[in-house]
Amino acid sequence: MTSSKPNALVGECFAEFIGTGLLIFFGVGCVAAMKLTGADFGQWEISIMWGLGVAIAIYVTAGVSGAHLNPAVTIALASFHGFNKRKVLPYIMAQLLGAFAAAALVYGLYSNLFHDYETSHNIIRGAAASLDTASIFSTFPHPSLSFGGAFAVEFTITAVLMFAILAIGDDKNGAPRGAMGPLLIGLLIAVIGGSLGPLTGFAMNPARDFGPKLLTFFAGWDSIALTGGKDIPYFIVPILAPICGALFGSWAYPKFVGLYLPGNKCTLPNKCEGNTDTPKVEA
Amino acid sequence: MTSSKPNALVGECFAEFIGTGLLIFFGVGCVAAMKLTGADFGQWEISIMWGLGVAIAIYVTAGVSGAHLNPAVTIALASFHGFNKRKVLPYIMAQLLGAFAAAALVYGLYSNLFHDYETSHNIIRGAAASLDTASIFSTFPHPSLSFGGAFAVEFTITAVLMFAILAIGDDKNGAPRGAMGPLLIGLLIAVIGGSLGPLTGFAMNPARDFGPKLLTFFAGWDSIALTGGKDIPYFIVPILAPICGALFGSWAYPKFVGLYLPGNKCTLPNKCEGNTDTPKVEA
Amino acid sequence: MTSSKPNALVGECFAEFIGTGLLIFFGVGCVAAMKLTGADFGQWEISIMWGLGVAIAIYVTAGVSGAHLNPAVTIALASFHGFNKRKVLPYIMAQLLGAFAAAALVYGLYSNLFHDYETSHNIIRGAAASLDTASIFSTFPHPSLSFGGAFAVEFTITAVLMFAILAIGDDKNGAPRGAMGPLLIGLLIAVIGGSLGPLTGFAMNPARDFGPKLLTFFAGWDSIALTGGKDIPYFIVPILAPICGALFGSWAYPKFVGLYLPGNKCTLPNKCEGNTDTPKVEA
Amino acid sequence: MTSSKPNALVGECFAEFIGTGLLIFFGVGCVAAMKLTGADFGQWEISIMWGLGVAIAIYVTAGVSGAHLNPAVTIALASFHGFNKRKVLPYIMAQLLGAFAAAALVYGLYSNLFHDYETSHNIIRGAAASLDTASIFSTFPHPSLSFGGAFAVEFTITAVLMFAILAIGDDKNGAPRGAMGPLLIGLLIAVIGGSLGPLTGFAMNPARDFGPKLLTFFAGWDSIALTGGKDIPYFIVPILAPICGALFGSWAYPKFVGLYLPGNKCTLPNKCEGNTDTPKVEA
Repeated sequence: MTSSKPNALVGECFAEFIGTGLLIFFGVGCVAAMKLTGADFGQWEISIMWGLGVAIAIYVTAGVSGAHLNPAVTIALASFHGFNKRKVLPYIMAQLLGAFAAAALVYGLYSNLFHDYETSHNIIRGAAASLDTASIFSTFPHPSLSFGGAFAVEFTITAVLMFAILAIGDDKNGAPRGAMGPLLIGLLIAVIGGSLGPLTGFAMNPARDFGPKLLTFFAGWDSIALTGGKDIPYFIVPILAPICGALFGSWAYPKFVGLYLPGNKCTLPNKCEGNTDTPKVEA
Repeated sequence: MTSSKPNALVGECFAEFIGTGLLIFFGVGCVAAMKLTGADFGQWEISIMWGLGVAIAIYVTAGVSGAHLNPAVTIALASFHGFNKRKVLPYIMAQLLGAFAAAALVYGLYSNLFHDYETSHNIIRGAAASLDTASIFSTFPHPSLSFGGAFAVEFTITAVLMFAILAIGDDKNGAPRGAMGPLLIGLLIAVIGGSLGPLTGFAMNPARDFGPKLLTFFAGWDSIALTGGKDIPYFIVPILAPICGALFGSWAYPKFVGLYLPGNKCTLPNKCEGNTDTPKVEA
Repeated sequence: MTSSKPNALVGECFAEFIGTGLLIFFGVGCVAAMKLTGADFGQWEISIMWGLGVAIAIYVTAGVSGAHLNPAVTIALASFHGFNKRKVLPYIMAQLLGAFAAAALVYGLYSNLFHDYETSHNIIRGAAASLDTASIFSTFPHPSLSFGGAFAVEFTITAVLMFAILAIGDDKNGAPRGAMGPLLIGLLIAVIGGSLGPLTGFAMNPARDFGPKLLTFFAGWDSIALTGGKDIPYFIVPILAPICGALFGSWAYPKFVGLYLPGNKCTLPNKCEGNTDTPKVEA
Repeated sequence: MTSSKPNALVGECFAEFIGTGLLIFFGVGCVAAMKLTGADFGQWEISIMWGLGVAIAIYVTAGVSGAHLNPAVTIALASFHGFNKRKVLPYIMAQLLGAFAAAALVYGLYSNLFHDYETSHNIIRGAAASLDTASIFSTFPHPSLSFGGAFAVEFTITAVLMFAILAIGDDKNGAPRGAMGPLLIGLLIAVIGGSLGPLTGFAMNPARDFGPKLLTFFAGWDSIALTGGKDIPYFIVPILAPICGALFGSWAYPKFVGLYLPGNKCTLPNKCEGNTDTPKVEA
């Protein structure tokens, strides 16, 4: 039997779509469970679940696309770690679409409960009070935080995320993680969620935030979904700050840690002749 | 010393009986603890415990039977992944019996506490109010959910479960999981339980649901155990929907992910000549 | 440099002393934290912590003694799995001493808080009300449970524990667990604690229960520590039932699972000629 | 392309700075989330998060510096396990600086919330009531504990920590942990936090405690940060007791466990000719 070789980029886009979809399905599903069914989740429980959900999403897709599942990661890997720049846009589109589709799926499965909750809480979609249910899907800042403060938080935690992802995926840095890698990245996200999560909702991922925001925009929440009810549209922060943070983290890791690992000689992998050991999310 | 080779199918049925029994023993035990002893468990704690219980059950039995522990998994693997169709019925019978027996064991060990709880809450078995204790053993839908909605939820989460089980067990998809596989499947179940569990009780497994339902039917809960007090008998949903979902998930994984893995060339393993690398729950 | 070879049994007794001590230090410490400092632990949190504590204790000592850390395990392995019968008594003495010493250490470190708690709750040690603090150290049955019921619970959960320990440590049963083994045993204990723990306190280990019980007996709780305030001295149940349960579990595993693993031919390892692959807690 | 070999000690100090910084970022961040945003964390949740945070910090830096991240560990390894004594001071300085810098970062990111909390609770920094917010950053003893009692607790738990770290990192003690090592150390810390944490805050690490204490001293809490409002300055206890405890634990492990491992012949690695297998945190 013969069959033609499938198109690699198509498979990678499927994988990014599915993986980003899975993490939204699990993550947004948990927040919906908490808000709409009274499941007794707090920041801790949500953080652990979100982290484990990302881990599962990585396991499912890493073999095909490397499981970026995050435009900020894709951009950072393309900028400093040799990821093919021509794949950046397709990856990001697939991630966004996956997040949007999964948010729609969760919305559909919970639709009766949305209706009941809104009725019993006198919430009219699109009005200010509907920020309560919009926040099931995407992140909005803590009321005490300025936009600059929110930017600083998202920048910092995404930088830490990217820095640590590169470290965990770096086979020269301690014992290679093998099949533990994705789980460790999940635990990393859980820890970030527990420590800084209450400030901005630990988006760290433009697709994770903007995909579901778009869904709510179209599903009746209207402009409140994008602005969070503020004068300046908040949605820009969890897009720009994670990208900047991931760029910083992916620039800093080889410079401050990677360089000093046994056998490493150059600060940035794509600046070295013949170095094919670019750190990857999963080896 | 010589001894005749034991019958393989007998061993596999023992394993499926024991494994499905263990997951019910742990899982139903946790819900009994929550309901009857006032243990402070919520959806999160139950989900994690149920996932870990399934993981243990897989570790104990994977080497003998592959640890399906779920008729939906058995049917799906027989349909699309080359599992011997003549073993399907024996596997399912063993799974059902294991779930029934373990539910009876938990019932026996907690029997004094059932009596005390029913007395103090004025619950008469078989009456509508006894749905409260019947739900220790098997799943009933959230009151806001229609039967169609419940079907959609169980279909979707079992499809995700099957899709991700195949991915986790696929040694070509990222670093092979080795001994981590069963634990990851347990965490997957925990995450599904946390995100969609409050809607239908995340049955995803006809034996997990119907075995204990039968036990309650015989142990005095009568028809309320099967119908959940509705006009249409609900018990059909967590039998049919998981089977359909598992079929969909096991069809979709090779088509949308497996095909694009390095070295894979065909969408469904049993359609390829000489391909013996059918994904398994545990390698 | 030369040094004489150390005495192996001395080392094994040190290891059993240290390991059993560690699990009591962690486990009893957690219950003390909950009771005396108002730490917000429930059955779930205690179960997870106790399981992780056992896992750490196994990691620390498995290389020397095999990390039985439990007289019931030692007796069962000697009866059915070829553990040297002449080591049984020394192992058990070391386990008991370790549990006693660690309970004394926790008591010492928390002594001021015991005093404050007893004062503020008007508890006089040795009186019936002091069962409240005695239960920090060792297990007492749920009030609804008869002695026979408690025996049945401890028998069943220790049988499950022993059965699953043998499965987890069996390198022929699925992918060998390697360094994951002790962690999986810890999670197994956590799941048992979550599902049946509220009935008897999931002792499953005569040393874990009787060592700290002796400490409380001598530290002023007097006979209430041994009897639990009942006419029949309860302390016998968590000694006898775990031993019987472990014997049953260790007899059943090779008969119902081990026999059917690829390459296995005989029901009990010590009945086979030349079979040196007796299942061990850690390979 | 050529580039000169980077200075190893510089890299190791970067790694210790980053690693200790990460654990403070995660750990102090969690306590800030609990205190300032009302996140529903208790001793259990904080302990798990702190442990996972340390695990991540070890994964990120182990390949460069061995991931001591703790002056007590550095001193103990230099005393009994052959760590180069000339690196002790640079390591400790880097750890302290990292902890200080990360505390400042968390303070900055949460600054608006500190302001709001202090305003709404009428807390004036430097006054006795500000111990409430100072305890976000560093540890203070349970009110029932004497200084001697606090010393005993910190000594004991750091001894247990060091003993178990050496065991976990000892490739002769059971199956080598490989990439699981740092996670196991994290779980160890979590278990210690759950069992003895409420007494002293489980500092076990002079840099973890004194770095953030210094930050609070400079950031307006003044002397209350160092003394905890007592006559004797408490800050000395979480510096001295962990060092003494780590020394004891690192002396005891080879003597009571390591010596009895197969193939080991001498009590302390640095006393053996040609023994290059000194236990390390990560192989």
